[in-house]
Amino acid sequence: MLPDSIEPDSGTVYLVGSGPGDPGLLTVRARALLEKADVVLHDKLPGPEILQLLPEERRIDVGKRANGDRTPQSEINERLVELAREGKSVARLKGGDSFVFGRGGEEAEYLAAHEVPFEVVPAVTSAIAAPAVAGIPVTHRDHASSVTFVTGHEDPTKEESAVDWEALAATGGTIVVLMGVTRLPDYTKALREAGMTPETPVALVERATWPAQQVATGTLETIVDARDEEGIKPPAVTVIGDVASTRETVVDFLENDYSTADPAEWPDEAEQ
Amino acid sequence: MLPDSIEPDSGTVYLVGSGPGDPGLLTVRARALLEKADVVLHDKLPGPEILQLLPEERRIDVGKRANGDRTPQSEINERLVELAREGKSVARLKGGDSFVFGRGGEEAEYLAAHEVPFEVVPAVTSAIAAPAVAGIPVTHRDHASSVTFVTGHEDPTKEESAVDWEALAATGGTIVVLMGVTRLPDYTKALREAGMTPETPVALVERATWPAQQVATGTLETIVDARDEEGIKPPAVTVIGDVASTRETVVDFLENDYSTADPAEWPDEAEQ
Repeated sequence: MLPDSIEPDSGTVYLVGSGPGDPGLLTVRARALLEKADVVLHDKLPGPEILQLLPEERRIDVGKRANGDRTPQSEINERLVELAREGKSVARLKGGDSFVFGRGGEEAEYLAAHEVPFEVVPAVTSAIAAPAVAGIPVTHRDHASSVTFVTGHEDPTKEESAVDWEALAATGGTIVVLMGVTRLPDYTKALREAGMTPETPVALVERATWPAQQVATGTLETIVDARDEEGIKPPAVTVIGDVASTRETVVDFLENDYSTADPAEWPDEAEQ
Repeated sequence: MLPDSIEPDSGTVYLVGSGPGDPGLLTVRARALLEKADVVLHDKLPGPEILQLLPEERRIDVGKRANGDRTPQSEINERLVELAREGKSVARLKGGDSFVFGRGGEEAEYLAAHEVPFEVVPAVTSAIAAPAVAGIPVTHRDHASSVTFVTGHEDPTKEESAVDWEALAATGGTIVVLMGVTRLPDYTKALREAGMTPETPVALVERATWPAQQVATGTLETIVDARDEEGIKPPAVTVIGDVASTRETVVDFLENDYSTADPAEWPDEAEQ
């Protein structure tokens, strides 16, 4: 893999993650593929700064259809196969990492079932990067010897909820919730009821590494109010656990700066 | 952040992750910083392909001391502060992501306590990338709605073990174990005793994205034998859960190829 002299293979699909949004956090290989692929299928989540790197004539937005509905995954899968069979090199670009709540696994299975060769290009996941750029390590020898990623899309009061918050609380490790702004009151309550102390530190990081990144901090008890006071909106990452208190200790010397780029329009959470 | 025209700030420490080892999986910003920083402190884990990108005169190997002992973290912390105070731009390069079992949190705290400005440069973590390049998504709508990262360094039979394998088993999600080759028999047993079915798929990925990457697959019951048959050695990532079976479905069309680069000397697990 010579990252700079890459020539994408025709008839191949590249499952490429964009990272959290800062173009500097694209991988070298992802950037080379986005420059060279015949066509790039994307939604809005890679963010304005990365999307504007793509020439208009080679981009296909598969986030939403003309009527505003989300494009069904089955339609995206079929499109990938069609384009590859036409002999094109195809980049399928997702926000974050394609294999972390990104349906990359489903796309890989569909491509293999249709005998289309594909390559996975791993990326920086927002689940780690969003806390990190806010000064929060997801693991720490003094605080957390494990970290779990879940999505907050589901209703934790539903009987059939796939996420077992009680078991998560019992791990004693850091919990990172993706897409969990709206249901924040539900799962913070579920975690308190599962025995986590109400004083457990919590941070919310909105639009990590994007222009106008925002951070709110609090505890399992106070974070809902902090969210409302700061006006935190999707997309955001929630980090729950003692590690979240690290921000306070280090923030005065943390130089990560995302204020220089132009603010831009934001996708809504439903697209994630 | 203009990734290509970066001029590192003197007196600033950059906590940079290298990703899993393929130079194409460095972030654009990490590569620019490694090219431009006055000095780069590293150990062997970023891998030979990335280390050979660094000019000899700007590298300091802080992995092991002359007598073969591992350099204490306290000594590395002090070195970072000294170099920054001399007015140098300092890149602290770690394998994977600095904030995932990488002591980046401790370094950030030490730097802030000594009033040294620092920037975190998030990276591709091997915990996601190693399974991914072997065709395994750590989450999947059909198989896993959470994923947990732990280290396998600890003895799970010890009373004071910080990792609660029983709670991890109860999450029902994917479990990714870093640095878990040696203790594989212990924690696979602990997970079976915690009620996970012995047929649970397991994969081991050694030297992910490095020359001569190796993969072994099996179940919670058979993976120890598979490890020994394939001769899997540290460093490797263990992925446990139904998602591990995805590899079999997709591997014939998976084009990720790490066979072209020159094989090189490997660090031992103790350095991680």
